[in-house]
Amino acid sequence: MVVPTSYGFDEATLYLHGSVASRSLQGGQAPVCVTITLVDGLVLARSVFEHAVNYRSAMIYGAPRPVTDRDEKLRGLRLLSEHLAPGQWDYARQPSRKELAKTTLLAIALDEASVKVRAGPPDDADSPDAALGLWAGELPLVSTWGRPVPDPALPPGTAVPPHVAARAGTTAFCP
Amino acid sequence: MVVPTSYGFDEATLYLHGSVASRSLQGGQAPVCVTITLVDGLVLARSVFEHAVNYRSAMIYGAPRPVTDRDEKLRGLRLLSEHLAPGQWDYARQPSRKELAKTTLLAIALDEASVKVRAGPPDDADSPDAALGLWAGELPLVSTWGRPVPDPALPPGTAVPPHVAARAGTTAFCP
Repeated sequence: MVVPTSYGFDEATLYLHGSVASRSLQGGQAPVCVTITLVDGLVLARSVFEHAVNYRSAMIYGAPRPVTDRDEKLRGLRLLSEHLAPGQWDYARQPSRKELAKTTLLAIALDEASVKVRAGPPDDADSPDAALGLWAGELPLVSTWGRPVPDPALPPGTAVPPHVAARAGTTAFCP
Repeated sequence: MVVPTSYGFDEATLYLHGSVASRSLQGGQAPVCVTITLVDGLVLARSVFEHAVNYRSAMIYGAPRPVTDRDEKLRGLRLLSEHLAPGQWDYARQPSRKELAKTTLLAIALDEASVKVRAGPPDDADSPDAALGLWAGELPLVSTWGRPVPDPALPPGTAVPPHVAARAGTTAFCP
């Protein structure tokens, strides 16, 4: 089973979270593989065979440890929240005791990981296919934060906070 | 083990490919889970607890069947290529017999899948948190194809083919 999820991290630990009711978080300490991939573009080669994707990818292996200590739980959830939406932890209402109890936080030590990166042009510039005279290169894929869309239920005139407004138009997932 | 990979599909079948030497494709007919996720934006709620991600996700379960028939292999690879880079299959040099032999193509029947989607504003408009007067809404994430970057090894003046040039500036992964 492979489940999409968000994450946070510090130098030593990866944090994942979810509902206490979530089936995918109930594996206890069974080993998992967490894979994070950013696609940077398509590599368009002279031959179909040499086509590729430019990407940055990490595979992290470990046995998740459920975090029960309240301070570590708050810290891990803050890391997760700030990784996705910097500034929101201090702007929004922070978790209540009840909400914390409903949330499972898993910690995975960043001890065993495999990192793969591909960047740059296709690999067939020196092949006989170069004589075909075809165009070859990279088609970049760029992820950008759009304009904030207000909740239709908001009272008119509620200002977009600066930490959210400032992200609009910026590139996500920079190296 | 969770491995990032590209894919192609038709109404009934998902196709994955890789090198014959690839360890991750050598599981034979052992069941796999293929998960595809597109992130559409962040859901910024009034409380940290109600924060979420807007996304479209499919989890496909099945036992991969190695494709050995030459016609099906070419058809599956073409689907995969055209899904990523429409027009390249006919523009670039198509696979030779040797290249086909070096490529593993796996077919997974699209019989068992789970699809999840979240869209729209946060869920706490009707909660007591609405009285906090905080901004809430969605921060969209938009993926766009950039300008084609020519292989530095190309002879000057090699024209970008129209099917590649036409993608620049267009949004990827539209619904």
